[in-house]
Amino acid sequence: MNFVALIERKRDGGAFAPDEIRWLIEEYTEGRAPDYQMAALLMAIFLKGIDGEELGAWTHAMLTSGKILDFSHLAAPKIDKHSTGGVGDGVSISLAPIVAACGVAVPMISGRGLGHTGGTLDKLETIPGFRTRLEPGEFRSLVERHGLVLAGQSDSIAPADGMIYALRDATGTVPSIPLIASSIMSKKLAEGIEGLVLDVKVGRGAFMKYIEEARELAEIMIGIGRSNGTRVTAFLTDMSQPLGREVGNASEIRESVDVLKGGGPRDLVELVLALGSEMLVLGGVEPNEATARDRMQKAIDSGAAFEKLVEVAEAQGGDPRVLEDPSLLATAKGDYVIEAERDGVVTKCDALDVGVAAMRLGAGRATKEDAIDPGVGITVEAKVGDEVSRGDPLLRLRWNEELRLTAALAFAGNAVIVEDGPARVPDLIMAVRR
Amino acid sequence: MNFVALIERKRDGGAFAPDEIRWLIEEYTEGRAPDYQMAALLMAIFLKGIDGEELGAWTHAMLTSGKILDFSHLAAPKIDKHSTGGVGDGVSISLAPIVAACGVAVPMISGRGLGHTGGTLDKLETIPGFRTRLEPGEFRSLVERHGLVLAGQSDSIAPADGMIYALRDATGTVPSIPLIASSIMSKKLAEGIEGLVLDVKVGRGAFMKYIEEARELAEIMIGIGRSNGTRVTAFLTDMSQPLGREVGNASEIRESVDVLKGGGPRDLVELVLALGSEMLVLGGVEPNEATARDRMQKAIDSGAAFEKLVEVAEAQGGDPRVLEDPSLLATAKGDYVIEAERDGVVTKCDALDVGVAAMRLGAGRATKEDAIDPGVGITVEAKVGDEVSRGDPLLRLRWNEELRLTAALAFAGNAVIVEDGPARVPDLIMAVRR
Repeated sequence: MNFVALIERKRDGGAFAPDEIRWLIEEYTEGRAPDYQMAALLMAIFLKGIDGEELGAWTHAMLTSGKILDFSHLAAPKIDKHSTGGVGDGVSISLAPIVAACGVAVPMISGRGLGHTGGTLDKLETIPGFRTRLEPGEFRSLVERHGLVLAGQSDSIAPADGMIYALRDATGTVPSIPLIASSIMSKKLAEGIEGLVLDVKVGRGAFMKYIEEARELAEIMIGIGRSNGTRVTAFLTDMSQPLGREVGNASEIRESVDVLKGGGPRDLVELVLALGSEMLVLGGVEPNEATARDRMQKAIDSGAAFEKLVEVAEAQGGDPRVLEDPSLLATAKGDYVIEAERDGVVTKCDALDVGVAAMRLGAGRATKEDAIDPGVGITVEAKVGDEVSRGDPLLRLRWNEELRLTAALAFAGNAVIVEDGPARVPDLIMAVRR
Repeated sequence: MNFVALIERKRDGGAFAPDEIRWLIEEYTEGRAPDYQMAALLMAIFLKGIDGEELGAWTHAMLTSGKILDFSHLAAPKIDKHSTGGVGDGVSISLAPIVAACGVAVPMISGRGLGHTGGTLDKLETIPGFRTRLEPGEFRSLVERHGLVLAGQSDSIAPADGMIYALRDATGTVPSIPLIASSIMSKKLAEGIEGLVLDVKVGRGAFMKYIEEARELAEIMIGIGRSNGTRVTAFLTDMSQPLGREVGNASEIRESVDVLKGGGPRDLVELVLALGSEMLVLGGVEPNEATARDRMQKAIDSGAAFEKLVEVAEAQGGDPRVLEDPSLLATAKGDYVIEAERDGVVTKCDALDVGVAAMRLGAGRATKEDAIDPGVGITVEAKVGDEVSRGDPLLRLRWNEELRLTAALAFAGNAVIVEDGPARVPDLIMAVRR
C-alpha cells in the first residue's frame, strides 16, 4: 500500500477498504508516515467524507491501537453514558452512582472542561484528594469492587486517537462529525462496555447548534457501536439554556449531592432518570423504563445511591466529609446578582452566554493550559418560562476576582431576557434514537 | 494572523487577502508553521480552489522568497519558453539557440524527466561535460555574453516553491491546476524575463489529457503573468502522439542538431518555428509571425543557430565535438523493431505508451532517484496518417538491457495501431491564447 495513493483516492472522493484504514492508522501511529501526510488525509476526509463502513474500521483501528479493558468476568452488565458537553451538565456525578447502586457497572471515563463547557473531572477534583488519574490496574479493581469508577482517560487507551486529535486540533480538521464520532467511540469502546447511552446536546451552549447535526452525530455513533458490537442509545437533549441551576465546579458537586439525596432541580433530575433508566434497560437489569425509574428512585430514597458516591470518592482518595457536608466545598468570596428589570416571563436564558461568563469567572478554561477556580460559578435563578417580578434574581455570579467579574458581566448581562411572554419552553428531551 | 484560522477559512471555501497569503508562505518557509499545517492548507486549496487574485499573490510570495534575476541592463529583450512536458518534446534544444541567434536573450531554466515525460536537462547532459547546475553569477554572465543559457533551477530561485512542491508531492496535492500554474510561473518570473511563450501539451502523453484543462491552465498562467507584469502567450499543442521521431536523451540531441542544420521531422520543425516566431514578436525584434519565421529560417540556413548551441554548450563545459558529429553521442547496443502486421494507415501512435516504454528502457525515471541511460530510447518510424505496408517498421526500440526491453515491449507492443483508415490526424497546434 502507498500512503500518497490512498490520500489521492480520498481526495478524489473514493472510499477505503477496512485493511487500508488499518494500515493508514498503523503507518501513522508507528511513525512510518509523517504528520503532514496524515494532515493532508484528514483534510481530504473532512471535505470528502468517510462512510459508515470506513468509519467503523477507522474507529476499530484507533481502539485497537491501545489497551482494551475486559470486564467479561464480572456478572454485572457494563454500561456507560457520554455527553457531548454543555453548560451546567453535571449529570454524570449523580447518574453514575445511582445506576451503579442499581446493579449496573459503570466504568466511566470523563474529560475536562474547555471553552464554555464544563468537564466532569474538574468538578470531581473539587473534592479534596479525589484522584481522577488512575492506572489501568486500579481502574479495573475499582469497577470490580464498587461497580463504579470516575476517572480520566489513560494514555494507554486509544493512543492513536490522542495523536490524531492533536493533529486535527492544529490543522483545522476538528469539527468533522464523523471524526468526532469516531474519536468519542474509540475511547468509549475501550472501556469494555456492552452498552452506551449518549447524551447529544443541541443548541447555543452545545457543540451541535442544530438538531440536524446532532441527529447525524447520533446516527453515526450508533452505527459505529453496531459495527463494533456495542448497543448505543442516543438522547438528543436541549442545551439552549443551562441544565439545572448550577454552573461551576464545586457548585455542581453540591447540586449532584442534592439529586442523590432526593432533591435537585427538576430538569436535571428528569434527565438523570431518563438516561439512567435507559442504562438499566440496556444492561438488562430492568425490563422497561417504568420499572427502571422505580428502582432508581428507591436507590435514591434508601440512600444507597449517595452512599455509592461516598464509597467511590473515598476509594479514589477523596475526602468523604465534603459530600456529607457540601458547605465544606470551595466557595467564592463575593456574590453579584443580576436582577430582573421588569415584571414578566423569562423567554431566554442563553447557555452560551452563561457558559462563557462562568469561564470568565474562572470556572472554565479559555485554553487547555488554564487552571480553573473551583469555587466560582453562576447560579441560574430563573429559567425559560419562569414568571419573575422586577428585582427578582436572574443570575447569581459567584466571583473571586473583580477583573474577572467585569469580564463575566459582559456576557452574563444580556444572557437572560424577560418579556411579556408567553415563552417557548424547549423540550428537555428532543428525541431518542437506538 | 492565525494559521489554523486561515486553514479553516479555506476549508470552508473562503478567500485570502494578499497580505494573508504572503504571511502564510513566510510562516511556512521560515519554519514557524510546521509541514502538517501547510499540508492541510494545500489539501484545502486543492479541493476548494484559489481564485485569480489569490493566485497572483501566492505566486508573487513564492517568487520573492528567493533571488530574482535582473537583466534590465541588457539591450536585448529577454523571453523564455516553457513546456508542460511531453514525449519526444526536445523543442527547447533547437528553439533556444535559433531565437538567441535572432537577437532575443533566452535565460532558460529547464527540468528533468519524470515518469513517461522527458526533461531537457537529462538530454543536455548527454553532451559530455555539459554542466546544467550553474551558480547565479555564472548564469547571469552566460546570458550577458551569449544571450543564452540552458540550466537547471538554482536553489536560490523561488525556494518557497521548492519546499511547497516537495510537500505537495508527498501529500497527493500535485495535480491542482492553479498550484501547478503558480509553481511554474514563480520560477519563470524569477528569470527576469519580459515575455514567456508557453507550450501546454494536451493528450494522452501530456499531464493535461483534455483541452478544457489545458485551456484552464493556460488562462491561469496568462493571468498570473498579467498580475506580475509579464506578457504570456500560450500554445495548446498535441501530445496524443510523440513529437518528432526521437524519444530518448542522446537521440533527441541528435534530432535537435538536425533541426538546427535545416533538417528534422516536419512536426518538430513546425512547432519550433511557431513558438520561436512568437518569442521574436513578443520580444519586439520582428513585427509579425511571417517576418519572424523568415528571420529564424535565415539563422538556421546561415549556421548561426547551430553555432549558438555549440558556443553555449562549450561555455557550459560541454564537448562541442559531439555536436559536430552526433554519432559520437551515446548509443544503445541493440535495436528491436516493431513492424506493421498488415498494410494500412497508422490511426494511433500512443504518446503515453511510447513514453512509458522509453522510460522502461531506461530513458526516463520511474522515481526521482532513478538514473537514466543516455543511449536508449525509441525511434517513431511511422506517425498517425502515415501509410504503411506489412513489415514496415513502426517503432524502433534501442535497448541496452534485455529485461528492460521485455518490460518496454509490454507498453510499446500496442502503442501503434494500423487500420484501414482514414486516420484522424490531430492538429499540431490546437489553439493559441494571449
